[in-house]
Amino acid sequence: MTNETATPVTVIGLGLMGQALAGAFLKAGHRTTVWNRTASKADRLVAQGARPAPTVGDAIEAGSLTIICVTDYEAVRELLGAKDVDLDGATLINLTSGDSAQARATARWAEQRGARYLDGAVMAIPATIGTAEAEILQSGPEADFEAHKSALAALGTVTYLGADHGLASLYDVAGLTMMWSVLNAWLHGTALLRTAGVDAVTYAPFARQIAAGVAEWLPGYAEQIDSGSFPAEVSALETDARAMAHLVEESEAVGVNAELPRLIKAMADRSIAAGHGGEQYPVLIEEFSRPSTD
Amino acid sequence: MTNETATPVTVIGLGLMGQALAGAFLKAGHRTTVWNRTASKADRLVAQGARPAPTVGDAIEAGSLTIICVTDYEAVRELLGAKDVDLDGATLINLTSGDSAQARATARWAEQRGARYLDGAVMAIPATIGTAEAEILQSGPEADFEAHKSALAALGTVTYLGADHGLASLYDVAGLTMMWSVLNAWLHGTALLRTAGVDAVTYAPFARQIAAGVAEWLPGYAEQIDSGSFPAEVSALETDARAMAHLVEESEAVGVNAELPRLIKAMADRSIAAGHGGEQYPVLIEEFSRPSTD
Repeated sequence: MTNETATPVTVIGLGLMGQALAGAFLKAGHRTTVWNRTASKADRLVAQGARPAPTVGDAIEAGSLTIICVTDYEAVRELLGAKDVDLDGATLINLTSGDSAQARATARWAEQRGARYLDGAVMAIPATIGTAEAEILQSGPEADFEAHKSALAALGTVTYLGADHGLASLYDVAGLTMMWSVLNAWLHGTALLRTAGVDAVTYAPFARQIAAGVAEWLPGYAEQIDSGSFPAEVSALETDARAMAHLVEESEAVGVNAELPRLIKAMADRSIAAGHGGEQYPVLIEEFSRPSTD
Repeated sequence: MTNETATPVTVIGLGLMGQALAGAFLKAGHRTTVWNRTASKADRLVAQGARPAPTVGDAIEAGSLTIICVTDYEAVRELLGAKDVDLDGATLINLTSGDSAQARATARWAEQRGARYLDGAVMAIPATIGTAEAEILQSGPEADFEAHKSALAALGTVTYLGADHGLASLYDVAGLTMMWSVLNAWLHGTALLRTAGVDAVTYAPFARQIAAGVAEWLPGYAEQIDSGSFPAEVSALETDARAMAHLVEESEAVGVNAELPRLIKAMADRSIAAGHGGEQYPVLIEEFSRPSTD
């Protein structure tokens, strides 16, 4: 049922994610206008109370806030740049996947046309949209975020990152790299343990404990990076490197894939070659901050 | 002060770790005998109440339990295989760093000489030995572990992994791979965010939250591996791979090292090429279980 005090919203783009976003707004009582190039994709939402708009321009005029979630940033520009679309005074929140440069460029483009623009990333699958589990990242002018954060709360857990429109994309990429790194390390360990007949279910709690434990070190290690000083309080990199050689050797000896430990060792070896063997692990930020040579 | 009801223990090898182990036993009230090739390394411990033994054989005879922590497994065999050493009836707990094959071979070698043998790994730095933070992994016959677990508790948090003597080494390697993977993903993300002027301290809590959150998925994902069935309940691998391509592109575009996202993508691409694009991420266990081709 529509709550007339809730911000009227528009959702442009009704792929799986767009449909989930519009559905969450409807469920939270927002008057929800929708538009999709293939209009039939709106049918299920319209049956639930969404209002179909005949054009993108009409869709944007119908809401105080327009969420756009389409294939890519080219499609964003094409749709919003059409002749009959007036962006002046509109508030756009772009949840389309893209990179930080596209986000910044699209922000300038939209602002030149008189729009308020926030760029976001959805760290969630469509099924979790509308629950606290769905992480929605937002970047752009803080006042625009503040004006609409209560509406965005219908979508999930919303985090504001800062005024730079590129931040949502960068945090998204960083978060996904962490996600797949934890999963890959767990798969590597699972593969190692399976050579000794240990079930994945038996090993998993150990992996979970290590990952969660190491996660707790990050804020402290971050202080070393910000201060640019890496005293070996816990362990020196050259000591670590000996254990890394052992990871590679053991992986090869039991016949599992050794590429992950080899990458771990290669990064540390490079830092040692650059003279940092007596410093602590976070000194590797220098290697991670440098373009790859290949 | 020595507690006469506590198991008398022997520590062979007084490097930084051996000294920490002996110190923790002394602190917990165990009568502690020590031996080191360079006898002067025992001086500080002797001042604290440790009893120096003139030979390895004498050291082993003095305790109900002998901890050995030396450079490598060759040194273990050399010291314990000396003519005047009688292992018959001794209980040995080997905390020397080595691989699973060495642990299994040394177990057989020690058992043939009449010793009870447990193999362990210390997932800790010397400074934390004697605190709950120090993780001590143990593998070998369960009865031998049970007989000595109360003495071992003086060293830290002790976990028994199973009868296979190679398990402590394999869990150690798996745990270290997880540790460095979390750190590397965090460094990669920190490098990305620094290109937008975000401090490491600002980014770290986000990285911590993702790592800890993903860690919670592992037990459920492990069930897919044990069942050998990988339905795409959350996301299909081919969808993941598109996001991975984006990780590589964004890393390259902002000029940070891209090797970690490239490895993430390469493993997934191989699994997709093997026909698993419609399945869920843990299907990569097949790639991780296969020797590297290079």
